[in-house]
Amino acid sequence: MNKIKSIFLIVFVLSITFSCQDKVDDSGDLSEIKSAHPSLILTKQGVKDIRANLGSIPIFDKTLAATQKEIDAAIENGFDVPVPKDYSGGYSHETHKKNYTLMQKAGVLYQILEDGKYAKFVKDMLFEYAKQYPSLPIHPKPRSYARGKLFWQCLNDSNWLVYTSQAYDCIYDYLSEEERNTLETDLFRPFADHISIDNPQFFNRVHNHATWGNVAVGMIALAMDDDQLLDRALNGVKDDNFDPNIKDNDGGYIRKDGQEIGFFANVNEPFSPDGYFTEGPYYQRYASYPFLIFAQALQNKKPELKVFEYKDSVLIKSVTALLNLSDADGEFFLLNDAQKGMSYFNTSLIATVDIGYHFGGNDPELLSIAKKQDEVTLDDAGLAVALGIKEGKEKPFVKNSIELSDGANGDEGGVGIIRSDGLELVFKYTAHGLSHGHYDKLSFALFEDGNEVVQDYGMGRFVNIEQKGGGNYLKENTTWAKQSIAHNALVQNETSHFKGKYDIGSKYHSNKYVFSVDDENLQVASAKEENAYPVTKLHRTMVTIKEEDYDNPYVLDILRVASEGSNQYDLPFYFLGQIMQTNFEYLKLKVPEILGKSDGYQHLYKEASATVKDGNIKLNWLRNNKFYTYTAVTSNKDDVIFGRIGANDPDFNLRNEQTLILRKKNAKDALFVSTIESHGTYSPVSEVAVNAYSNIKNIEVVHDSKEYTAIQIDTKNDKSNVFIISNENNDNEAEHKLKIKDKEHSWKGSYVLIENKKL
Amino acid sequence: MNKIKSIFLIVFVLSITFSCQDKVDDSGDLSEIKSAHPSLILTKQGVKDIRANLGSIPIFDKTLAATQKEIDAAIENGFDVPVPKDYSGGYSHETHKKNYTLMQKAGVLYQILEDGKYAKFVKDMLFEYAKQYPSLPIHPKPRSYARGKLFWQCLNDSNWLVYTSQAYDCIYDYLSEEERNTLETDLFRPFADHISIDNPQFFNRVHNHATWGNVAVGMIALAMDDDQLLDRALNGVKDDNFDPNIKDNDGGYIRKDGQEIGFFANVNEPFSPDGYFTEGPYYQRYASYPFLIFAQALQNKKPELKVFEYKDSVLIKSVTALLNLSDADGEFFLLNDAQKGMSYFNTSLIATVDIGYHFGGNDPELLSIAKKQDEVTLDDAGLAVALGIKEGKEKPFVKNSIELSDGANGDEGGVGIIRSDGLELVFKYTAHGLSHGHYDKLSFALFEDGNEVVQDYGMGRFVNIEQKGGGNYLKENTTWAKQSIAHNALVQNETSHFKGKYDIGSKYHSNKYVFSVDDENLQVASAKEENAYPVTKLHRTMVTIKEEDYDNPYVLDILRVASEGSNQYDLPFYFLGQIMQTNFEYLKLKVPEILGKSDGYQHLYKEASATVKDGNIKLNWLRNNKFYTYTAVTSNKDDVIFGRIGANDPDFNLRNEQTLILRKKNAKDALFVSTIESHGTYSPVSEVAVNAYSNIKNIEVVHDSKEYTAIQIDTKNDKSNVFIISNENNDNEAEHKLKIKDKEHSWKGSYVLIENKKL
Repeated sequence: MNKIKSIFLIVFVLSITFSCQDKVDDSGDLSEIKSAHPSLILTKQGVKDIRANLGSIPIFDKTLAATQKEIDAAIENGFDVPVPKDYSGGYSHETHKKNYTLMQKAGVLYQILEDGKYAKFVKDMLFEYAKQYPSLPIHPKPRSYARGKLFWQCLNDSNWLVYTSQAYDCIYDYLSEEERNTLETDLFRPFADHISIDNPQFFNRVHNHATWGNVAVGMIALAMDDDQLLDRALNGVKDDNFDPNIKDNDGGYIRKDGQEIGFFANVNEPFSPDGYFTEGPYYQRYASYPFLIFAQALQNKKPELKVFEYKDSVLIKSVTALLNLSDADGEFFLLNDAQKGMSYFNTSLIATVDIGYHFGGNDPELLSIAKKQDEVTLDDAGLAVALGIKEGKEKPFVKNSIELSDGANGDEGGVGIIRSDGLELVFKYTAHGLSHGHYDKLSFALFEDGNEVVQDYGMGRFVNIEQKGGGNYLKENTTWAKQSIAHNALVQNETSHFKGKYDIGSKYHSNKYVFSVDDENLQVASAKEENAYPVTKLHRTMVTIKEEDYDNPYVLDILRVASEGSNQYDLPFYFLGQIMQTNFEYLKLKVPEILGKSDGYQHLYKEASATVKDGNIKLNWLRNNKFYTYTAVTSNKDDVIFGRIGANDPDFNLRNEQTLILRKKNAKDALFVSTIESHGTYSPVSEVAVNAYSNIKNIEVVHDSKEYTAIQIDTKNDKSNVFIISNENNDNEAEHKLKIKDKEHSWKGSYVLIENKKL
Repeated sequence: MNKIKSIFLIVFVLSITFSCQDKVDDSGDLSEIKSAHPSLILTKQGVKDIRANLGSIPIFDKTLAATQKEIDAAIENGFDVPVPKDYSGGYSHETHKKNYTLMQKAGVLYQILEDGKYAKFVKDMLFEYAKQYPSLPIHPKPRSYARGKLFWQCLNDSNWLVYTSQAYDCIYDYLSEEERNTLETDLFRPFADHISIDNPQFFNRVHNHATWGNVAVGMIALAMDDDQLLDRALNGVKDDNFDPNIKDNDGGYIRKDGQEIGFFANVNEPFSPDGYFTEGPYYQRYASYPFLIFAQALQNKKPELKVFEYKDSVLIKSVTALLNLSDADGEFFLLNDAQKGMSYFNTSLIATVDIGYHFGGNDPELLSIAKKQDEVTLDDAGLAVALGIKEGKEKPFVKNSIELSDGANGDEGGVGIIRSDGLELVFKYTAHGLSHGHYDKLSFALFEDGNEVVQDYGMGRFVNIEQKGGGNYLKENTTWAKQSIAHNALVQNETSHFKGKYDIGSKYHSNKYVFSVDDENLQVASAKEENAYPVTKLHRTMVTIKEEDYDNPYVLDILRVASEGSNQYDLPFYFLGQIMQTNFEYLKLKVPEILGKSDGYQHLYKEASATVKDGNIKLNWLRNNKFYTYTAVTSNKDDVIFGRIGANDPDFNLRNEQTLILRKKNAKDALFVSTIESHGTYSPVSEVAVNAYSNIKNIEVVHDSKEYTAIQIDTKNDKSNVFIISNENNDNEAEHKLKIKDKEHSWKGSYVLIENKKL
């Protein structure tokens, strides 16, 4: 990586020199091309091509017509530039937000349609901003660690500038030099300074905030052809008197001492070589827009930087990685802070997909996503996609099982996604995920046909819904959503992983052990976590097994806990839906009790409980007219708790969903083994229940040692499977031998499934 | 009504005589036509026409192909006639159920495709049943008041016979006389006797059970050309030693002393002249199949009975009435016992719509429903529909606001459905609804775009899901779902209407006061209930008001309570979704408390409460990405309780949804006034909230007397509306004068909306 970085720096220095030369040679051809506008998301050639194709590129024409309709209405209704006042969801916030998208769109329309009214609309609004900006104080709302001027946080100010730079670029030639001088002097330069020089704690980070900040400054620098400002975007603000102890509003550190800063550092560090963004897909979706829009502008304006080739083309890889982190409906998996329902239909993903296609070698699978989005960007990239679709080049975007490594070098764990028929199992063994990370080492979630079955709670926030804490993070995000017990993750002694401390958690990551998905009937993901609790080691293996006798594959989950002390272990199971039946008797409490005092336990009600014996417990439930069963191996005196979210929730901020917690007390080592089946359906129209019961007769641990764990699964068709995993050797080529119940088994590789074998 | 009945009886006696004559003249032409098979749902001519049109009637061809595929597979797999053993959901139950539909379909295929393998399949299965039936004991499961032989209740045995009669009719001519004798002697006659003579408490009723029983006997009577047995179906079992004190499993009385019985009594009594079925749409859906399939068979075989003209064509009217009782997605409103999700896509509705079309004058609007169903019955009626669709005759089935009266004579209250843009308000002021009735006088539910917004709980049952109480009614249906507090209905002193006693409740009905929907901007439904509580009178008026300044209409709800004693009044509001905000402070309890001891209160947790002052309370919530607000007028010291369903629910049988209860204590008279708005939207993809807040600034009672109630509604656009209702005179022509705040208003009719008038 250091080598790559050095090469890049050399290229960059050369390019600065080169572009300085351009400036000197003001009348030269090269300079004319370089300083021509538009040149960020649209190019002169791109505009020509778009105009030539208009009327014959349906998806582009449709987007254009919709945009034109929207902007024509906006022009007719007039605009407002209100005094900054509100948090997200409030009038001034939403209006400034609307304004920048209106300007961006109007700018593009001016280029494509050559109608001066669009340029005038942008110009008028910009001058209104330029009039107000010089006298604007810091935004009155105090909540942010980096307060903006138009918005309560520099983050939103940066959003504004990223879009507005595009608008400025589009109407650059429409403005007189004097007008440009006014705008640049009164608005753009002080605006860029505020989010960078005035707020280095925001700008000089590796974080999605800083990405937006860097890109905002970079975009306006490119629009103004200001290479000095561009250098600030790419390399950060120098001499910011950095205090390594300060934190942001989410409790995240600003940056590590000596950490690289600027745009390229923001590409390099959070993206793994597979294109996984360490904060998770919800924030990758948010950050992908500035990453790719700026990369596009850099590529158009400074092709010598070869931004799309940076770090082995990681920005292009990130597009496919992000799409792979979505369910059957295109909704992103909930990893770390994430709001449910966010999907690749989000506007920023339209740009992401289009840019990924245009600058990433025209991958025909991206066209099928663009077609689903039914919209393109109104620029060169969007034209390329529209032409690709028109020419019938698209291929289905096939989502297979995939592992995406985490960490700048890909060596900090990862996410394993196993896809088997309609099931999607998302197994998380990543690093912490910066300040948006959750304390949920080795947790998982299960989806079927685009619906969550075993859920990740997501975040404690209603984004932009002002009624709920101004649309910002709620305190329950910290006290509940981030805590370990809020996840399908093991919790020791009612304490979150890393004691719920970001300082500790962000030092560590889980480690991949096995990810093997070549056999669609037997897919295995296995990972280890050795730092969440001192002296306790966790090893979880998640398997999908598909048998010919049954319609659906089932999930086998093996979680080994090895500790030096005696502990209580809780393993929650957040099934969504209504309990149909259990095979054990439980006692429903007259009124719920609060489950615990801290670490998220204070938000759980205990509604019912049972003490069980050696054997299996079964929970059969109904969700979206499908029947599911969870079967778990239990030991004598294990507790089963039915919990419900919602305690200590004075404002009804939480969703009151259920969980089943399997609790092992006074245990040193422990083994949690379970299966999850989707086995049946119900129709409320025909009122017919099909395969309402589990196909699994019994699951049993037939061997468990430091070296091996073996689980026997007996199904109702009188077959038995035995799954064996080697706990200490994940070498594919290693030969193993194990005697179970006096019978010796041998195999090669870290695991084996012995089918239809009763031991 | 008595007159109609008498005329019918004369016609019937004549027809019996007539058909007896047919039998004597065994060789005559007429007899040949009459005794020809098939003649129940298919006729000889119908079969000819079907065969002539095959391949050119897409919806019929498609249904035929699917049916053929299903039956071919069944023939290949073979069938099972298991020993009767299980409740609903269990193997023997589901298999016998599957068998009768397979036979019905195979019979029809034999007629249409002329392939003997289908007849053989029916014959083989029938003989297997005939072999077992003579030695079958009463079904071993003891729960029913009328136990069947194949199934645990005669109801399901009747289902079996209704379908199997059709199959027998179809293969009648395929069988030898000896074979027919065997089947009739060993199977059909004893089968019919068991559900009638052996179980008069089942057969001799006015109830959907008896309808199925009567029709089962009637269908096999027509198939066997047995007029004596037909008489039993039409007029009941004579001399049944009726005990008027016995009840069925749902707690309903078998019948009133002296009540008419038999098929026509079952048409006459539960159907109002508008075609509303007193048990509600869920059971109408269930009963409509036997009603219409038997009417069809009677019409084909005994046209002289003019069954479709009976009671001013009530069976035809019932088809349209039932379709009008569904939401935008075709799902039935939840009135009385009803499972959510049941819709006009149910198989029985396919027959209902097709028969309604074919025998009811070819109403082209029914074709659009049939087209949505995308399936037709494989008989004469289905052919008529398929031809109608093919010929492009369909018109949209437009659901407007409609009132459907209840009671055999239409004078026992009714259901008022107000439709205004996407909103559907269902206001219930019916009679009790027989044994499936709920104690919810003047309750309502609100739907938007096919989604429930303010819910009716429905029933406490998971139909045919064996895990939940054998798929039958759960005890919570009685202790919770039927109780008044489970509905959006007023509850006095924590006691259900009529003390929750069927004997009392079934004697009374509410009364319509106003139903006026001609002005789409101002629609009014108003009704009174004077018997739910002794000496307390209830009068509820529900209004939709549509103003040009706002996108959606809003609901105004005025509930007047007048009593002679001092009482506690609770008005629950079952909003679905998550609380976003309230305008009042409430105290969330550390742990929930149980709200009360009985009448459903024992199933409610109190989660939070507030004591409020004179003014308005507001509850703003989010459901399906839409923002809603409930605004209610409060008096000093009113209590507001946030409740949640789920207390005393040891098996997690209940759904844990929320309610807001407005409680007035120590009140004699009381006035509950509120508005419900759907005012905004949220997108989790764009994360934009639009119109998240209520448009209503204030609502105020500006007059309330015995004679008049007037409500002023101030909206945020600085307009005021005043709605006045005359409480004692519902005459459309009456002239009214009322002075409010020193200003006199005059109008004609029972209500008025004075727009944009601040008082």
